[in-house]
Amino acid sequence: MDPITPIGVIRSPRTELTNEWWGEITARIELDPQVFQPGATSGLTDYSHVEVVYAFHLSTRTCTADQHPRHNPSWPRTGILAQRAPNRPNHIGVTVCELVDVVAFSLTVRGLDALDGSPLLDVKPYLREFAPRGPVRQPDYTDELMRNYF
Amino acid sequence: MDPITPIGVIRSPRTELTNEWWGEITARIELDPQVFQPGATSGLTDYSHVEVVYAFHLSTRTCTADQHPRHNPSWPRTGILAQRAPNRPNHIGVTVCELVDVVAFSLTVRGLDALDGSPLLDVKPYLREFAPRGPVRQPDYTDELMRNYF
Repeated sequence: MDPITPIGVIRSPRTELTNEWWGEITARIELDPQVFQPGATSGLTDYSHVEVVYAFHLSTRTCTADQHPRHNPSWPRTGILAQRAPNRPNHIGVTVCELVDVVAFSLTVRGLDALDGSPLLDVKPYLREFAPRGPVRQPDYTDELMRNYF
Repeated sequence: MDPITPIGVIRSPRTELTNEWWGEITARIELDPQVFQPGATSGLTDYSHVEVVYAFHLSTRTCTADQHPRHNPSWPRTGILAQRAPNRPNHIGVTVCELVDVVAFSLTVRGLDALDGSPLLDVKPYLREFAPRGPVRQPDYTDELMRNYF
């Protein structure tokens, strides 16, 4: 496997961990000009949404078993792979957000839940064919967990 | 940024690159017992779908500008970040697929577009709140591109 290294950085007004109201946050994705050549974002504005892959760079601990989501004992202990907490093996975040604008190597996005300075690992166009095939089922407590997230 | 390393491997009946009919493919995700402790997948079967992050380990070239999708000249040249081709900076794939079963450190999934032997980087539960907020727009040629993909 080839090494995975940052290909840019995320600039966000948010600098501290929070789990509320990411939906209206506008962030800027700055692509590394050492990595990309002109044309790398050509055609991207034909898409309304992008999938952003980034590193949880402020996550220092790693859980390899189970924990209460957000360390809140009112939610059941679940495996680290059954939650999206940052303290997972491989500190990788993946979030679909709205693409607002692209100017040269700078992308403006809305609704990206990444803290300022997060290393960028990938940007992919969102295609509706990549949505879940079949009906989605998730546990009831996630209604509360996600209520004000976006 | 902490190094990103494999946390398991994907076992698939498919060993060669193809862009058709991934929807009915059943694959097995084997978590690395050196990485995880019991409990790591606890509660995962409460979810119908998982988001699998893996490495395109057979991708050797890297495009940093633009190319025809699937090298097909009948589709417009677009930036590497405006397509989901494997030959991108950081060979990372992200796909939502159906979770069929979990037995200890072995997950069975349906509709995962990863070739046999792909290094696993992450598994996340799919939450409907992480779907695109707002209507999705994508270019017309993707209808043809994606027609038989899943």
